[in-house]
Amino acid sequence: MSDQNEAPQTLEGWYVLHDRYRIDWRRWAGEAFEQAAMVAELAAALQQVSTAGAGRGDSAAFAVVGQKADLLFVHFRSMLDELKQVELALRRLRISECLEPCGSYLSVVEVSLGEVSAIAAKKVADQGIPQGSVRWQDAFDRELAVQTQRLEPRLRPVMPAARYCSFYPMSKRRGEQANWYTLPIEERRAMMRGHGRIGHKFHQQVTQVISGSMGFDDWEWAVTLFAQDPLVFKKLIYEMRFDPVSAVYGEFGSFVVGVRLQPADLAGYFAGNMPAL
Amino acid sequence: MSDQNEAPQTLEGWYVLHDRYRIDWRRWAGEAFEQAAMVAELAAALQQVSTAGAGRGDSAAFAVVGQKADLLFVHFRSMLDELKQVELALRRLRISECLEPCGSYLSVVEVSLGEVSAIAAKKVADQGIPQGSVRWQDAFDRELAVQTQRLEPRLRPVMPAARYCSFYPMSKRRGEQANWYTLPIEERRAMMRGHGRIGHKFHQQVTQVISGSMGFDDWEWAVTLFAQDPLVFKKLIYEMRFDPVSAVYGEFGSFVVGVRLQPADLAGYFAGNMPAL
Amino acid sequence: MSDQNEAPQTLEGWYVLHDRYRIDWRRWAGEAFEQAAMVAELAAALQQVSTAGAGRGDSAAFAVVGQKADLLFVHFRSMLDELKQVELALRRLRISECLEPCGSYLSVVEVSLGEVSAIAAKKVADQGIPQGSVRWQDAFDRELAVQTQRLEPRLRPVMPAARYCSFYPMSKRRGEQANWYTLPIEERRAMMRGHGRIGHKFHQQVTQVISGSMGFDDWEWAVTLFAQDPLVFKKLIYEMRFDPVSAVYGEFGSFVVGVRLQPADLAGYFAGNMPAL
Amino acid sequence: MSDQNEAPQTLEGWYVLHDRYRIDWRRWAGEAFEQAAMVAELAAALQQVSTAGAGRGDSAAFAVVGQKADLLFVHFRSMLDELKQVELALRRLRISECLEPCGSYLSVVEVSLGEVSAIAAKKVADQGIPQGSVRWQDAFDRELAVQTQRLEPRLRPVMPAARYCSFYPMSKRRGEQANWYTLPIEERRAMMRGHGRIGHKFHQQVTQVISGSMGFDDWEWAVTLFAQDPLVFKKLIYEMRFDPVSAVYGEFGSFVVGVRLQPADLAGYFAGNMPAL
Amino acid sequence: MSDQNEAPQTLEGWYVLHDRYRIDWRRWAGEAFEQAAMVAELAAALQQVSTAGAGRGDSAAFAVVGQKADLLFVHFRSMLDELKQVELALRRLRISECLEPCGSYLSVVEVSLGEVSAIAAKKVADQGIPQGSVRWQDAFDRELAVQTQRLEPRLRPVMPAARYCSFYPMSKRRGEQANWYTLPIEERRAMMRGHGRIGHKFHQQVTQVISGSMGFDDWEWAVTLFAQDPLVFKKLIYEMRFDPVSAVYGEFGSFVVGVRLQPADLAGYFAGNMPAL
Repeated sequence: MSDQNEAPQTLEGWYVLHDRYRIDWRRWAGEAFEQAAMVAELAAALQQVSTAGAGRGDSAAFAVVGQKADLLFVHFRSMLDELKQVELALRRLRISECLEPCGSYLSVVEVSLGEVSAIAAKKVADQGIPQGSVRWQDAFDRELAVQTQRLEPRLRPVMPAARYCSFYPMSKRRGEQANWYTLPIEERRAMMRGHGRIGHKFHQQVTQVISGSMGFDDWEWAVTLFAQDPLVFKKLIYEMRFDPVSAVYGEFGSFVVGVRLQPADLAGYFAGNMPAL
Repeated sequence: MSDQNEAPQTLEGWYVLHDRYRIDWRRWAGEAFEQAAMVAELAAALQQVSTAGAGRGDSAAFAVVGQKADLLFVHFRSMLDELKQVELALRRLRISECLEPCGSYLSVVEVSLGEVSAIAAKKVADQGIPQGSVRWQDAFDRELAVQTQRLEPRLRPVMPAARYCSFYPMSKRRGEQANWYTLPIEERRAMMRGHGRIGHKFHQQVTQVISGSMGFDDWEWAVTLFAQDPLVFKKLIYEMRFDPVSAVYGEFGSFVVGVRLQPADLAGYFAGNMPAL
Repeated sequence: MSDQNEAPQTLEGWYVLHDRYRIDWRRWAGEAFEQAAMVAELAAALQQVSTAGAGRGDSAAFAVVGQKADLLFVHFRSMLDELKQVELALRRLRISECLEPCGSYLSVVEVSLGEVSAIAAKKVADQGIPQGSVRWQDAFDRELAVQTQRLEPRLRPVMPAARYCSFYPMSKRRGEQANWYTLPIEERRAMMRGHGRIGHKFHQQVTQVISGSMGFDDWEWAVTLFAQDPLVFKKLIYEMRFDPVSAVYGEFGSFVVGVRLQPADLAGYFAGNMPAL
Repeated sequence: MSDQNEAPQTLEGWYVLHDRYRIDWRRWAGEAFEQAAMVAELAAALQQVSTAGAGRGDSAAFAVVGQKADLLFVHFRSMLDELKQVELALRRLRISECLEPCGSYLSVVEVSLGEVSAIAAKKVADQGIPQGSVRWQDAFDRELAVQTQRLEPRLRPVMPAARYCSFYPMSKRRGEQANWYTLPIEERRAMMRGHGRIGHKFHQQVTQVISGSMGFDDWEWAVTLFAQDPLVFKKLIYEMRFDPVSAVYGEFGSFVVGVRLQPADLAGYFAGNMPAL
Repeated sequence: MSDQNEAPQTLEGWYVLHDRYRIDWRRWAGEAFEQAAMVAELAAALQQVSTAGAGRGDSAAFAVVGQKADLLFVHFRSMLDELKQVELALRRLRISECLEPCGSYLSVVEVSLGEVSAIAAKKVADQGIPQGSVRWQDAFDRELAVQTQRLEPRLRPVMPAARYCSFYPMSKRRGEQANWYTLPIEERRAMMRGHGRIGHKFHQQVTQVISGSMGFDDWEWAVTLFAQDPLVFKKLIYEMRFDPVSAVYGEFGSFVVGVRLQPADLAGYFAGNMPAL
C-alpha cells in the first residue's frame, strides 16, 4: 500500500456552477406593483447570460420540484471568474430581494483521456505501423490530436435542450475494505467500461454531463442528466445501482430535479404557472 | 464483483410529492381579520386539488403530530410537472404567509414486474402450452398484459381514506460487508418474499404505497402507510425490523405521522381543534 | 440470515410527546405590559392540561438546563390525536409569541410481554396443573390477564413527581458485525435481563418510562428518567454503558435534562428565577 | 460478551455549563446611546456571578476566536439548578438583546476513584498491616477518606486564572471492532495510566478540568484546558493523538478556543479591543 | 497497541484564521446613499490589516465562487489574540451590516521537524565527523539551527500573491482497520515522503500553506493552496487522491475556492464586477 497508484489522465472543459434559490413568496406577494418589472428584468438577464458568447459557454434555468429550490441556474463558462461574474449578475437583480440562496455546486467538465489514447493507439495499429518506431509515435501523436479534438463537444458542451434535468454530486468510496483509489488501474478501467455500457444503453434518452470537483467542492464529481422524460433518470440510476462501480464504490449526495424554464416562461412561473409542454 | 448484477424490472405510476409546512402561529394571530377568508381559500384549494381529474391523481392533507410539521400535503399526479403545479397553487395562497416550508420528498409509485411475470408464466403453463413455442410467447404476452392491467390500482392508487398516515424514506444498505446490490437476484427475491409476507399479514389494517426515488430525491424509496389505528404503524415496522430485509439491509430516514384533515376540518384546525373522530 | 427472527410481543399504553421550546427573551422583554397576563394564561393552561381526565394521561413542564430548550413539555395521552390537541392548545396561547419550537419527539409507552408470559406460566406451573392440558391453557389465560392488568401502572403511568428528568432517544445497533436484530431471541432475552438488573439496582432512585417510536419518530425508543437527584442519571447511564446491551448494541441521540416547573413556578421562571428546592 | 463489564467508580464535584453567544454587531451598533449602560450591567453581572459564594463555584468569560462564538461563559456550580439560574441571570440582562445563543454543554466534574483506592491501599500496605484483617479495613477506610479529601480541589476547582482555554466534548469509541466498553478493566486501566503520563508531562503548562456528561449531554465527557500559551493545546492534543486511548478509542466533537475576559475587559471588547496582555 | 506511538516533532509559525462572510445583497441595495462610504471604509481597513507590521503577518481577501461565501478573509498573525483583534476590526465596520458570518477556521502554520533533522544529520555526516562524538553533537546543533532558520519563510510566510486559492480542512483517518495514528513512524514517514513528491511536482504552480488545528478547530489540519490557474487545484488533489496518504488515510472537509480581491477591487466587486485579469 506504500506505492502510489496511477491517477487517470483527464481533460477539462467548461467550469460549471449549479446555483439554487428559493422564491420567498411572501415577499413576492408584497411587491405587487413591481412584479412585472422585476420578472422582466430577470427574463432579460437570463436571456443575456444564456449564451456568454462564442466559445464561452451558456446558462439555463430550471423549476425544481419540491422544496429544495424553486430556481436552479446551471452555468457553463470558460473561466472560473466568469462563473462568479454571472452569479453576481443574477444576484444583483431587483428580483433577488425575493430569492433566497439555498445551495450551489462548483465543478469543471471532465473527460478521461484513457479511452481517447486507446482509440488513437488502435487507429495507428490498424494502419500497420510497427509500434515503438519513430513513425508510430508521429502517427500516434497526430491521431491523439484528432481524437482529442473530437472530445470538444463533450468538454465544452452546448446546454442540452431537454425539458428535465437531474443533478447530484458523488464520490468514489474510500472505505476500509472497498476503496476505489487503491484498486489496480486495470480493475478500475474494466469496471468503468461496464459502467459506461449502461450509460450508453440510455444514450438516446439521456445526455450526461460529468464534471469533476476535487479541490473545488465537497464531493469528487457532479453529474447532470438531461432528458425529455424524467422517468428515465430513475431507470438509468436504478440500473446503474446494481453495477459494481455504483453498488460498491459509489457515494451519492442530494438529488435535485428540475423542469426547464425559458426566459419567456419566467413571468408565468412567478405567477404560479408551469410552462406548457 | 466485476460483473453487473441484475436490476429488477419495475413499472411506475403516479409521481408523488410529500410537502410539509409549519404554521407560524405568531403571524397567524396577527391576521385576525383575515383568518376566516384565508382558511376558506385554503379549504377551497385543497378541495379543488384533491382530485386533479379522472386518471390524473388526487391529494390529501394531514396534521403532523409534533414539531416536524403542522401540515403535510400528499400529492399523487400523472406527471412530474403537475406536482410542481399543485405545489405552486398552494404556495401562492394568501395563507401561505403563515406557513413555513419544512421539507418535501419526491418519488414515483413503483411495482416490481418480477412477481407479475411469475404469475403470467404460471397461468400460461397451467394451460398446458409448451414453453418456448410461438403459442407460448403469444399467450404469455397476452397474460402479462392482463396481469399488468391488474396492477393499475397499485400504480395509480386512489388516495386511501384512512385517518392516519406514517411517511418515511429508506434505502437498501450498501455496506462494506452487507450490500443489497451485490447479492444474487435469487437471494434478493427470496428475502423480498419473506418481507412481503409480513406486509401481507397487516394487509387488512394498513395500506402501503411504495414509491421509488432514485434520481429524484436523497433516499432510494419512500413508504407511505395509511391506517385507521396508528398503533399498527409501530407493530408493522417493529415486526419487519427483525426480518433480514430491514434488519440487515434497511436504512431509514425521518418518520412523520399525521392525522387526516378534510377540507372542512381546516377552519377548526387553524382555530386549534383536531377533527372529531 | 434468510429466515425472519422473532420479534418480541409488546403491550402499548400512553402515547407520549416531548415538546421543547426556547424562550425568546428579547421578545419577552418587549412585552412588559403583557407579561403578567401571558404567564398567568400559560400557568392556567398547564394546570388544565396537567391532567387530561381520568385514564386519559397527564402533562408536566421542565426548565431545561443549557440552550437545548427553556421549556420541555412532557405529555402522556390515551390517543395520538390528543397529543396534537394539547400541543395546539399550548402553541396558541399568547405567550407562544415568545416561544420558539426547538424539537419534539413522538412515542408510545411500551412493555415487553415476554416477562409477563414467563410469570404467568410459572404461576400456573406452581399450581401443579399439567402443561398442554385444556385446564392449563385456561389457567394460563386467566393468569396472563391478571399479570397484564398489573402492568397498567407501567403502561399508563401517572407523571412521576420527581424534580429532575433526563430524556433521550435511542436505537439498537444494526451494524455490519454487531446487529441486535439478527441475534437469537434467547441471547437478546439474556442480555435484556442483565440490563434490567442494572435498572433495578437504581429502582429506588430513578423512575424509567420506556416508550417505542418505530414508525413514529427517528429513533427506535425514547427513554425518560425521573429522579430527585440528577447525579443518578449519570451514575445509571455510566454503569449501563459497560453492559453489552448498551456497550455493543446501544446508539444514543441527544440528551436533555430538566428541572420540574409547577404551574405556580412559571411566573417566577419567566422573571428569571428557578423554583426553590 | 453477555457478562457486564466493570464500570469504574467515580466521584463528582461541580456541575459545569459551557454557554456560548455570538455578538450581533448590527444590533449592537444600533444601541449607540445604551451601549455604555448595557456593557456596564454585563460587567457587573459577570463580576457578581464570578464567585457564587464559598464552596458554591465560580464563573468566567472568554472571547472565542473565529465565528463559533464571541463570548463563552464557563460556570462551575454546586447544583444543577444553580447552572440554569446563572444562565438565566445573564440571559435576562439588557445586553442579551445583542447576543445570540450558539451552543451550550452540560457536564459534572469527575474523578475516577480507581487511582485513589490504589493510593490508599498502598499507604496501608506500607504500614505493614496484613491485608484482609479488620485493622486493614479500618486503616484503608481512614486512608481512603484522607485521599478523597485531597481530591477536593480537583472535584470543586477554583476557576484557573490562565489567559486561554480550549474546550471540547469527547466520547470513547464503541466501534464494531474497537470498543472501549468491552475491554477488560485491566487493559483500560493500563491505557489510562499511559494517557495520564502525557497529561502529567504538560502538567506545569496546562490545567485540565475533566467532566462527565453521560445522561446530561450528547457526548460522554467534556474537557476544558487552561494555559498561558495557546500553542500548548495543540502540542498536548497532538501528542495524545498517538496514544491508543485517543488514537483508537477517542472520538472528538467541536473545539472552541477562547481568550479570558475579565469583567473590566468587557467595555473594551464590545468596543472592538482585545484585552492587553 | 498499548504502547504509545511516536508523535512527530513540529515547529509552529503564524496563527491563521479563515473567516467567511456572505453579502446580504438585499440590505446592500437598501444602503444606496452609504454604499460608497462603506466600501471605501472596508477597502481602507483591508489595506491596513493586509500587513500587521514587520514580522507580525498579513491578510488577504478573496471572492468565493458559489454560495459558500462572498468574501473569504485569510489572516496570518503572530499571536492568537491578534487574529480575534483583526476579526473584530472587520466585523465592526459599517459594511458588516451587509455581511453575514458563514464559517471560520482556526489553525497555526506547522512544519514537521523530521525532515529538518534528517537534513542536518546528513550535512554533519558529509563533513566526516564521527556520529556520537561531542563534536558531532555540536555540529549537529549548529546545523539544525541553520536549517530551522531556513524554515522561517514557510513558518511565517508572506501571503502568496496568486490570483486563486483553495481552502479545505482535513484529518488523518482513525478507522477500525486503517488508522494513521497506530502505524509505525517509519511507515508514516515513508508514505509522507511519497506524498511530498506529488506536492513537489506541482511546486512551480502551487504554493501550499499547511497549518495544524488540533485543539483549535474541528479537523486536524487546514490546507490553503494558492495558484495562478485554478485547474491546478483539481489536478494536484486528483493525483494525490491515489496516493495512500490520501486514498487510505485522508478525510476531507468542505472545499472553498476564491479569487483574490485587492483593496482597490472591492468597490467594483460590491458593484457586481469581478476584478479584471
